[in-house]
Amino acid sequence: MQTLDLERYLRANTHDYAACLAACLECVVACEMCADACLDEDNVQSLARCIRLDRDCAEVCATAARIMARGGPLAIEVCRTCAEACEACAVECERHAAHHDHCRVCAEACRRCAEECRRMSGSASGRTAAR
Amino acid sequence: MQTLDLERYLRANTHDYAACLAACLECVVACEMCADACLDEDNVQSLARCIRLDRDCAEVCATAARIMARGGPLAIEVCRTCAEACEACAVECERHAAHHDHCRVCAEACRRCAEECRRMSGSASGRTAAR
Amino acid sequence: MQTLDLERYLRANTHDYAACLAACLECVVACEMCADACLDEDNVQSLARCIRLDRDCAEVCATAARIMARGGPLAIEVCRTCAEACEACAVECERHAAHHDHCRVCAEACRRCAEECRRMSGSASGRTAAR
Amino acid sequence: MQTLDLERYLRANTHDYAACLAACLECVVACEMCADACLDEDNVQSLARCIRLDRDCAEVCATAARIMARGGPLAIEVCRTCAEACEACAVECERHAAHHDHCRVCAEACRRCAEECRRMSGSASGRTAAR
Repeated sequence: MQTLDLERYLRANTHDYAACLAACLECVVACEMCADACLDEDNVQSLARCIRLDRDCAEVCATAARIMARGGPLAIEVCRTCAEACEACAVECERHAAHHDHCRVCAEACRRCAEECRRMSGSASGRTAAR
Repeated sequence: MQTLDLERYLRANTHDYAACLAACLECVVACEMCADACLDEDNVQSLARCIRLDRDCAEVCATAARIMARGGPLAIEVCRTCAEACEACAVECERHAAHHDHCRVCAEACRRCAEECRRMSGSASGRTAAR
Repeated sequence: MQTLDLERYLRANTHDYAACLAACLECVVACEMCADACLDEDNVQSLARCIRLDRDCAEVCATAARIMARGGPLAIEVCRTCAEACEACAVECERHAAHHDHCRVCAEACRRCAEECRRMSGSASGRTAAR
Repeated sequence: MQTLDLERYLRANTHDYAACLAACLECVVACEMCADACLDEDNVQSLARCIRLDRDCAEVCATAARIMARGGPLAIEVCRTCAEACEACAVECERHAAHHDHCRVCAEACRRCAEECRRMSGSASGRTAAR
């Protein structure tokens, strides 16, 4: 298991981003992996929407992670969208979770990330405004 | 002047993304350029928030452009956030537009992109749902 | 047809990036579109490698474009890798060009981008060193 | 400390990417954080090159991480470039390490990532060719 000591990379004003940032990074990896693994399945045609959502979700999570790492002024807005992206991807992946382990694993990563992003965008909205 | 024939790369169901996609690509370039140019200014410290918004805005516009090029299922949500990002960046760049040409040019690109993204996320919300 | 006036966004020392930057942006769009279009084809399983190269190539082209827009110090190295990525993607897309128009269009964008990136990484290697 | 169980997201043929992937993700975070932290320093003008390399390095590391997570066919080439990017960024950050803790932390992340990427691009060159 890899241990990322993300907190040492975060500044004082971004310390409480750490859990959300980690969840976004995990979700990028899970989505990229799932999209790729789907391409090797026999029923790849029935996984087209799953691949599409994996791709979009990876994109949004990567953006959210990078903006949080910066303590960027737009982190709240991006986390809000990221929660929606993860939610949509989780719903689709769960449909295939019984048959494909990569979908099950990806759905779990998406659920965790959606929850963290909702927490971030809900509770932290007053914080970056001052920068 | 470079002419990008983006429409030849877009599929039937993404044809009306072309103007918004082009605006996002221009805005990525404008924001990356502006952030870099700010670093050479004498008053770089007073441009810190401008650089930060340039960076976040570039990130969001790049994501929006790529998701639109795919006809991705999350295009609407991402364009909505992109409009907010561009709006915030435009407001800050306009504060420096009289003194720095790169800020003036970037503000214009952000304004155009915000408008296109609002149009996309407002009028097209029923369209990608079917995929 | 969209006209991107990229040159107005580029600074003096990055003016000769304009053609390469435009080719990279076109290639991002072409690769994202092709990967997505492949997912709707009956023979999607035989297009798995095409989708994989489209995805990787889009990633590398987007990075190259953004770094060039900044006039970033690593532009030369990234353009060298981008030329390789585009070459590999072009070769694969050309195998399917007779049957799928999106592969033909993408192969052309990749060829152009590979050529521009080779030109950039070959001729400009002494230029960014001074920054 | 955040623990990323990246291995559960990786497929059989990408298991040995795990350490390099983790190093790239850490380096993205370190570079984004350092670039942002530099903007708050009194001597920000003397940190312009550091910010530029941080930005380019973050871009390349993010691309490398995503392509490795996919087990993408271009992982070797991208890791080779990533090693160069990290090396260049480490050298610059080390120049400021005595005065700025974010530069010291970033330099360490860049060194680790450069080493992992060299290992990947050196030892694994025959592996992805078969895909």
